[in-house]
Amino acid sequence: GFSSSRVASGLDSRFTTVLGSQWGDEGKGKLVDILAQSYDVVARFNGGANAGHTLHVGKQKFAFHLLPCGMLNEKTINVIGNGVVVHLPTLFHELHDLENAGMQRAQNLKISDRAHLLFDFHKVIDGIQEKGLKGKEIGTTKRGIGPCYATKAFRNGIRVGDLVGNFGEFSEKYMRLYNDCRQMFAFDYDPKSELKSLKSFRELIKPMVTDTMFYLNDAYKNDRRILAEGANALMLDIEFGTYPFVTSSSTSVGGISTGLGMSPHKVDCVIGVVKAYTTRVGRGPFPSELCDEIGDFLQKEGGEFGSTTGRSRRCGWLDIPLVQYSAMINGYDSINITKLDVLSKLKEIKIGTHYVRNGSRLKPGEMPSTLDGLAECKLEYETLPGWESDISDCRTFENLPPAAQKYIERIEELLNIPVSWVGVGTDRDAMATKGFKVKK
Amino acid sequence: GFSSSRVASGLDSRFTTVLGSQWGDEGKGKLVDILAQSYDVVARFNGGANAGHTLHVGKQKFAFHLLPCGMLNEKTINVIGNGVVVHLPTLFHELHDLENAGMQRAQNLKISDRAHLLFDFHKVIDGIQEKGLKGKEIGTTKRGIGPCYATKAFRNGIRVGDLVGNFGEFSEKYMRLYNDCRQMFAFDYDPKSELKSLKSFRELIKPMVTDTMFYLNDAYKNDRRILAEGANALMLDIEFGTYPFVTSSSTSVGGISTGLGMSPHKVDCVIGVVKAYTTRVGRGPFPSELCDEIGDFLQKEGGEFGSTTGRSRRCGWLDIPLVQYSAMINGYDSINITKLDVLSKLKEIKIGTHYVRNGSRLKPGEMPSTLDGLAECKLEYETLPGWESDISDCRTFENLPPAAQKYIERIEELLNIPVSWVGVGTDRDAMATKGFKVKK
Ligand SMILES: Nc1nc2c(ncn2[C@@H]2O[C@H](COP(=O)(O)OP(=O)(O)O)[C@@H](O)[C@H]2O)c(=O)[nH]1
Ligand SMILES: Nc1nc2c(ncn2[C@@H]2O[C@H](COP(=O)(O)OP(=O)(O)O)[C@@H](O)[C@H]2O)c(=O)[nH]1
Repeated sequence: GFSSSRVASGLDSRFTTVLGSQWGDEGKGKLVDILAQSYDVVARFNGGANAGHTLHVGKQKFAFHLLPCGMLNEKTINVIGNGVVVHLPTLFHELHDLENAGMQRAQNLKISDRAHLLFDFHKVIDGIQEKGLKGKEIGTTKRGIGPCYATKAFRNGIRVGDLVGNFGEFSEKYMRLYNDCRQMFAFDYDPKSELKSLKSFRELIKPMVTDTMFYLNDAYKNDRRILAEGANALMLDIEFGTYPFVTSSSTSVGGISTGLGMSPHKVDCVIGVVKAYTTRVGRGPFPSELCDEIGDFLQKEGGEFGSTTGRSRRCGWLDIPLVQYSAMINGYDSINITKLDVLSKLKEIKIGTHYVRNGSRLKPGEMPSTLDGLAECKLEYETLPGWESDISDCRTFENLPPAAQKYIERIEELLNIPVSWVGVGTDRDAMATKGFKVKK
Repeated sequence: GFSSSRVASGLDSRFTTVLGSQWGDEGKGKLVDILAQSYDVVARFNGGANAGHTLHVGKQKFAFHLLPCGMLNEKTINVIGNGVVVHLPTLFHELHDLENAGMQRAQNLKISDRAHLLFDFHKVIDGIQEKGLKGKEIGTTKRGIGPCYATKAFRNGIRVGDLVGNFGEFSEKYMRLYNDCRQMFAFDYDPKSELKSLKSFRELIKPMVTDTMFYLNDAYKNDRRILAEGANALMLDIEFGTYPFVTSSSTSVGGISTGLGMSPHKVDCVIGVVKAYTTRVGRGPFPSELCDEIGDFLQKEGGEFGSTTGRSRRCGWLDIPLVQYSAMINGYDSINITKLDVLSKLKEIKIGTHYVRNGSRLKPGEMPSTLDGLAECKLEYETLPGWESDISDCRTFENLPPAAQKYIERIEELLNIPVSWVGVGTDRDAMATKGFKVKK
């Protein structure tokens, strides 16, 4: 059998990362929240205000799109790394929400001087591009993420360090970028008013701006424990995801190095978050999709509706080949299965075990690169008995009903990776452990 | 003292990478060429046809811009990874050069189905953008690299896998991208003729197109040794370089994971290539620059002129803070000092040891994020005696003159990393080893 260690669980590791392994919305927030309490530093390395972790503290609910999840803890330092794109109005909006709840946390936040700034016109461009695709929309959140990373690649992007430098030079750069973009996309827009608000953010942000690559490497050297929090998920990665239905940043383990400036050798624990079934927002092939009453059941039981957009998520059985692919790329040391409770009422549960394309099985780790190729894949399933009982009070693997244990063990076998954590309910502490004990 | 091991030298490691640690042109080619002979697979993970390794075989000289350096070896499999952008006419041009020299190597080449295609209009856009910068040029090689990565981020990019799929669908996608780009950049161009030549490349490329992420992970599992060959260099990295005077890809160690789809845990040897002095092409701050006769001497003695563009390179003393920064990000296991022979005629040699900004020393690893910030850094130097003798026949560290040994040892001390290889001349085998022996 498989057994996870405390290191693989993230409890005894020095530099841990929690990564989404499917199409997002796996429920990464809960584990990050649990781990964050024992880490000195929590860092975001990719994406922008498209993360969307929901955190519950008592009766209060916080939706962080851009802020790292350690912001709720008084003693945790939070880092927005160089790989993130930063929309300042959103950043200060989220800081204000915390302040309104009595949490003055600005001094706990460090923002990379190398992170690119996301301007309002990046959002405008996002909208224009989606409209232009007429029926072929990517389904972006229109938060300007793609256009901002494109600006970065074009090398007319502007970074946080530029804003806190000479403001005259910054304004010039801003106007140049604005004009470049307007020439390309012909939009109507008031740059003067954005510049004005940027000027006021500038003073607020100054104390937060840091050489975060140095800060993180130095913290690591001084035995501070670091948690790198992945936004989005492997199948939404710009390289490895179902392009073009992806986000424009590196959601994979490599993004930690490119987005924080820390050597990969230092990452000693990579946890993949795997929902007990599969969901997908928006269009694109989805081999294990259930377009029947079971799909509807999963959607309702799992609350599979976008937290910001309200869009309902497509649902299906657990797709093992997809997670095998994700595990090959990211090298998970252990797995956090989430939302196992959502399956509790089902009589039978299926697991998709193999992709079959043109009559032959793909090998574990193989994944067609094109949408057409993935659409050609049919899944082979095996059927396991359900447990048909409430598991939301279970706190260890041994407490789970035998059928639920079997389901978990079958996943371990198929992935050849131990499961460390199992989400069993919506509550903040509804998590069962496997193979290790949480000291209290 | 420092001592490198055979693992740190790349001779006994399983998965090695050779990375440029300064502003490029460090002479990575020679070490890659030496190592490639004992590796099963050589892979490119970043950039495009802007690499420019020069390889000498007998009297023949090959300039590879896009092909991996293992193409000269009959038994090496060469991989162009998903992180690379591929200009097909260049690819086939380089393959034809090999063919003309009697080397049929197409069957040794695997191209990722996820690599993005770089079209001729990407080059046109590169030129238009540089022109638009009037006096603020980035100094790109106008090979379309930036625009192609921007297309990728915008998610209207087209990948190798698309070309070998349904050609009707590919043509539609191509025309859509072409029209998007023309709308943005208003250029004159014949898409029909490019489509026609793409169609002919399509047949040629089909047998090469591979799920390289699976291929590489599978090869690793089967004990094949893999060498990942970095193009460009850390200070040209899109994240960590002197933005905007950078290339648009990940040249850092994280780029191996994002660009090949292999977990960072597998990389067991990272070699940083450090030229014995510093050079920089194009504009931007350069703290150790020598604008005097020593600078001219280094330029002539080192042949510091661009191999493709003919542009002369700015020259200066070795900048240790820059390499410390690069080492912090990339985590070098050992260092290859190159072109030590270029210093052989000098009476005295200086090493820049510390950046001083606004009167205080920066800590090792700290690096200002802005051009202005770097321009404010003054270097503190120490002076070492030269060796004033020819070293080009030395093949071990012990054979080097004492003063040359001291220079190397001082670099090791300042970087806290062992030197494994020392380049001592232009010849293919002009390389001294330190701390290990090459079996013959
Ligand atoms: N039923 C159930 N819901 C969960 C579990 N874990 C997380 N959730 C819910 O899943 C939703 C999405 O989680 P979130 O962390 O925001 O997703 P993320 O996009 O992966 O970060 C939240 O509403 C959570 O309360 C679980 O184990 N069971
Ligand atoms: N004098 C001297 N020249 C070298 C040495 N190593 C490499 N070179 C030359 O440096 C040039 C650039 O090398 P190349 O590998 O193309 O640079 P890259 O851009 O880092 O890949 C080539 O002309 C090499 O012959 C060395 O140790 N001494």
